[in-house]
Amino acid sequence: MSDPCIICVAITGSVARKENNPAVPITVSEQIESTHAAFEAGAAIAHCHVRNDDETPTSDPDRFAALKEGLEKHCPGMIVQLSTGGRSGAGKARGGMLPLRPDMASLSVGSNNFPTRVYENPPDLVDWLAEEMRTHDIKPEIEAFDLSHIVQAAKMADDGRLKTPLYVQFVMGVKNAMPADERIFDFYIETLDRFAPDAQWCGAGIGPNQLTVNEWCIAKGGHTRT
Amino acid sequence: MSDPCIICVAITGSVARKENNPAVPITVSEQIESTHAAFEAGAAIAHCHVRNDDETPTSDPDRFAALKEGLEKHCPGMIVQLSTGGRSGAGKARGGMLPLRPDMASLSVGSNNFPTRVYENPPDLVDWLAEEMRTHDIKPEIEAFDLSHIVQAAKMADDGRLKTPLYVQFVMGVKNAMPADERIFDFYIETLDRFAPDAQWCGAGIGPNQLTVNEWCIAKGGHTRT
Ligand SMILES: [Zn+2]
Ligand SMILES: [Zn+2]
Ligand SMILES: [Zn+2]
Ligand SMILES: [Zn+2]
Repeated sequence: MSDPCIICVAITGSVARKENNPAVPITVSEQIESTHAAFEAGAAIAHCHVRNDDETPTSDPDRFAALKEGLEKHCPGMIVQLSTGGRSGAGKARGGMLPLRPDMASLSVGSNNFPTRVYENPPDLVDWLAEEMRTHDIKPEIEAFDLSHIVQAAKMADDGRLKTPLYVQFVMGVKNAMPADERIFDFYIETLDRFAPDAQWCGAGIGPNQLTVNEWCIAKGGHTRT
Repeated sequence: MSDPCIICVAITGSVARKENNPAVPITVSEQIESTHAAFEAGAAIAHCHVRNDDETPTSDPDRFAALKEGLEKHCPGMIVQLSTGGRSGAGKARGGMLPLRPDMASLSVGSNNFPTRVYENPPDLVDWLAEEMRTHDIKPEIEAFDLSHIVQAAKMADDGRLKTPLYVQFVMGVKNAMPADERIFDFYIETLDRFAPDAQWCGAGIGPNQLTVNEWCIAKGGHTRT
């Protein structure tokens, strides 16, 4: 493999709180400094969520704007990726920050189960988010929680709803979705290669699977998220 | 392969109406006579939906009871499988017919996209339907619309939520879910065999994929639905 491995840092997800881990950065200034340290350690992409003052997740465009501005100042050249994930908002509120024109944004193209609920990505919302990303020239990171999401992303690229080359993240280890399984991970790579030969991919293992999936990514020629 | 191929007949789904196809059986008596003909032609399982008088789908236990009674009389020995699918009702109404104790009932264990909406199978509803099937000694047919559903069914068998051996149906060709793809079909078989070695499987191709998937099922040692 000749391409360098891109390390994406997800400083703050939408779930963990200070009471779970005092080190998790919650405020925008905490997130900027934490990302700054990761940037100096070699991370190239910052995958960003934002929080309300009470630590609950939000899609508030103003908070995303403040975070994006701080990252551009402290981490020049770092790729800023904003989350349109469904834990932080519902419906089109999930894409309210896209007019900020970040370099990248996450995009789920299918639905699946999460630990206690359905992760809902209805087809019309997926199409609207994809359209907003085309309009604002944002590169999507496809979040594949299941095999059909990979095939669906390729279909959306074929019919022009997504720009090529695709960048797809394989997410494993979420309860009630896909567990971290190496044979399935390999099949994800094979399937993406078959349906979208010019695509790049990365992997994310949730919770205790993180290091295992990182190792698969590095060994098999993908990028990875920490 | 030494096991006989079981043919499952789905006389009436939840979508097609008389205006789409005048031959589709809608009333309970039409369904009974149509299934009777399929039974005499060799079908062993009847996968059943019921409709309201206006042809809209319903989970009404009384209509299911009338259909089940008629099938038992006209098709002695045929396996009656009632649908708990989400097009016909919402929440626990989907399982309201399970106290009728049919031989089998369909069970989705994950969520996915359908052509225009999310097919919602939240974890607590899945667990409740599975528990009702254990209580009433009903064998589930797992409806796998994506790869993780196969793994999830095996996990539910391992922890006692589903009885073994599993019976899993691979559903392909639904828009915005998994298309009919032979390499993925083969991987479904491989994955089921790895996670639930004693399971049996069948396949269903929706719409124009029906005959293709039937052929894969017969060639690869599974059962099939028409
Ligand atoms: Zn995220
Ligand atoms: Zn700094
Ligand atoms: Zn059905
Ligand atoms: Zn008859």
